[in-house]
Amino acid sequence: MDLDSKASDRPLDPRCLLTPEAGNSEGKTFQDTVGFPVAVVLPAAGCGERMGLSTPKQFCTFLNRPLISYTIETFERISWIRTIVVVVAKESYDQMLQVIHSFHHTKVKVVEGGTTRHRSIFNGLQAFHESTEGPSLIRPKVVIIHDAVRPFVEEDFLLKITLAAKEQGASGAIRPLVSTVIATTSEGYLDHSLERAKYRASEMPQGFLYDIIYQAYQRCSEFDFEFGTECLHLALQYSGTNAKLIEGPPTLWKVTYKRDLAAAESVIKEALSLSACLISGTIAETVALASHLQKNLAANSMTVDVYQSATGNNELLSKTRNFIQISASEESLLEISEMVKVLEEKNHALLYPVVIVWVVTFCGLKGIWKKENTDTAF
Amino acid sequence: MDLDSKASDRPLDPRCLLTPEAGNSEGKTFQDTVGFPVAVVLPAAGCGERMGLSTPKQFCTFLNRPLISYTIETFERISWIRTIVVVVAKESYDQMLQVIHSFHHTKVKVVEGGTTRHRSIFNGLQAFHESTEGPSLIRPKVVIIHDAVRPFVEEDFLLKITLAAKEQGASGAIRPLVSTVIATTSEGYLDHSLERAKYRASEMPQGFLYDIIYQAYQRCSEFDFEFGTECLHLALQYSGTNAKLIEGPPTLWKVTYKRDLAAAESVIKEALSLSACLISGTIAETVALASHLQKNLAANSMTVDVYQSATGNNELLSKTRNFIQISASEESLLEISEMVKVLEEKNHALLYPVVIVWVVTFCGLKGIWKKENTDTAF
Repeated sequence: MDLDSKASDRPLDPRCLLTPEAGNSEGKTFQDTVGFPVAVVLPAAGCGERMGLSTPKQFCTFLNRPLISYTIETFERISWIRTIVVVVAKESYDQMLQVIHSFHHTKVKVVEGGTTRHRSIFNGLQAFHESTEGPSLIRPKVVIIHDAVRPFVEEDFLLKITLAAKEQGASGAIRPLVSTVIATTSEGYLDHSLERAKYRASEMPQGFLYDIIYQAYQRCSEFDFEFGTECLHLALQYSGTNAKLIEGPPTLWKVTYKRDLAAAESVIKEALSLSACLISGTIAETVALASHLQKNLAANSMTVDVYQSATGNNELLSKTRNFIQISASEESLLEISEMVKVLEEKNHALLYPVVIVWVVTFCGLKGIWKKENTDTAF
Repeated sequence: MDLDSKASDRPLDPRCLLTPEAGNSEGKTFQDTVGFPVAVVLPAAGCGERMGLSTPKQFCTFLNRPLISYTIETFERISWIRTIVVVVAKESYDQMLQVIHSFHHTKVKVVEGGTTRHRSIFNGLQAFHESTEGPSLIRPKVVIIHDAVRPFVEEDFLLKITLAAKEQGASGAIRPLVSTVIATTSEGYLDHSLERAKYRASEMPQGFLYDIIYQAYQRCSEFDFEFGTECLHLALQYSGTNAKLIEGPPTLWKVTYKRDLAAAESVIKEALSLSACLISGTIAETVALASHLQKNLAANSMTVDVYQSATGNNELLSKTRNFIQISASEESLLEISEMVKVLEEKNHALLYPVVIVWVVTFCGLKGIWKKENTDTAF
């Protein structure tokens, strides 16, 4: 029963949604590995009929934030990605600018889309070429094309796609087929079923040497622009480049139906629930309690970082959304209000809700006080 | 951008999850249309690795009820389906019996599964053949094979599948492909992409004349039992029966990942939120308020049935989970406690949570009192 993939649909590192920069296992940062300009094109001009909603799906909201903003943040947090070109329908242009403003996105350039997916992507690519309407963006060596409605993609997978594109000219994410694919007769009967092992579902992201995909779009036909959807196919047909295919995790799935919004929300909530920052203080009994708590939370699959103090640890604080402050007495409210101040200054609750738990110990555990909020007002 | 399906993923009739029996547009009930025995085989012996959970996915719970119980209820509420054979792994046998007991399922026979999907389905089919271990089940004319992890399938679609199977020998649900399907080279490069319009994803349910699918399983090879997954393929190869393919709604999707549980929960909640039963009473002002409320709720896409009294309307009460009782004075508590009594007697909250809203009007709207509960205790 569908044993062809054993991967979980949870991100590998619960903090991957939140970490602004990460390193690889050899101590080198990904930034060091990617020594060339990389940009992203996010086609977001669809109107989302499948949702059964009037709002295009990329602008549908969960946890007080539109889907497209989650996807943008996924790329924006990666230091080696310089520019994100978001391609939207004319009627969504102002709304998109508003999203960028509201959620403090900084790397985004908004471009008007075309009538089909391929036309929109080409418009996005042209943003690096145009010069009549002002200075063009720095042309990337590699461009990643992704869907606005696939909010979860991890840095290490993007790195694989990017490096394969640099080396081979084109690369793309694939997934095992979930259902058997069948060919039908014109009368609506089963003709034959495909051998599942030989085929894969082509997913996003895909990566290309900029010159290769740009050339493919310049050469392709009106028929391609009108009816085609697969960038890998264009690169093959018009630039002679055979894409390297890389199996991606199930988190790459596309938000298609209304129910997928609930699924996406559950993924975010679970990721948030799996990491915490524990502020232990320096007194023996609070340190002991912190150590005890850390062990217990780790047994529940939580990644818990322990620090003696919140102040001066801005970098560390930015990694998580769950804070557990252990105090020796109720008078230590100062500690927690200082933490809230730091979080407010960093606009920490803008992108994800923040949870602060205050544990007060006095000759053992005295009380647990928990506050959940979305704007860090205390 | 994925315009190949405009269907919503919501059930067409919000009460379809809840209605015990329905009629078609010509006034004939589906029971009249299906004048032959129909049974269901639900393979549920998978261990659910994809979920990333220790519990097999069919036993994962949402809204206080395991997934498999939702799927069983989907079939059990249909009067023309006589028997549901659930095939479970040996280690889940007792758990399955417990689910049947807890949620008062009445049409289910539990059978032990095999080591692969095809072996499990064959075990299920054999339950209608065996006689050494006691009397066998009544052999159906048509057997529907479905997945335990696809909880949403509507009666009208099951009818289409059943009638096509009766007429053609085999039938199956199909859906448009969500992703481009590509063939890969042995080195992991793109070979070619399939023309999307010519192919479909094969989904469940599938229907068969019992004799045809039983014969196919009797004749098929050990290789088929070990590596095959597609029943339509067996019917074609071993019984020479070409299945009629019928496009199904997006609600047929399979709960595969943990996030899909959140999606399934959201589908149930939305369906529940879209229908209500309004008890208007008989006094002019409560009737007027009921009519006003009905119009307003209808404008919000709710299906609202209005009745003067709850008592004597057992059939009507069983159709919904949201009750709005309008009373002329606070002394009318009797009306609402009578309704709660009826619901309790019918075990109404066993399968879905029940919401009761009590509106008291006295020279206009006086107050709204709302109670949400899951056990109808008042």
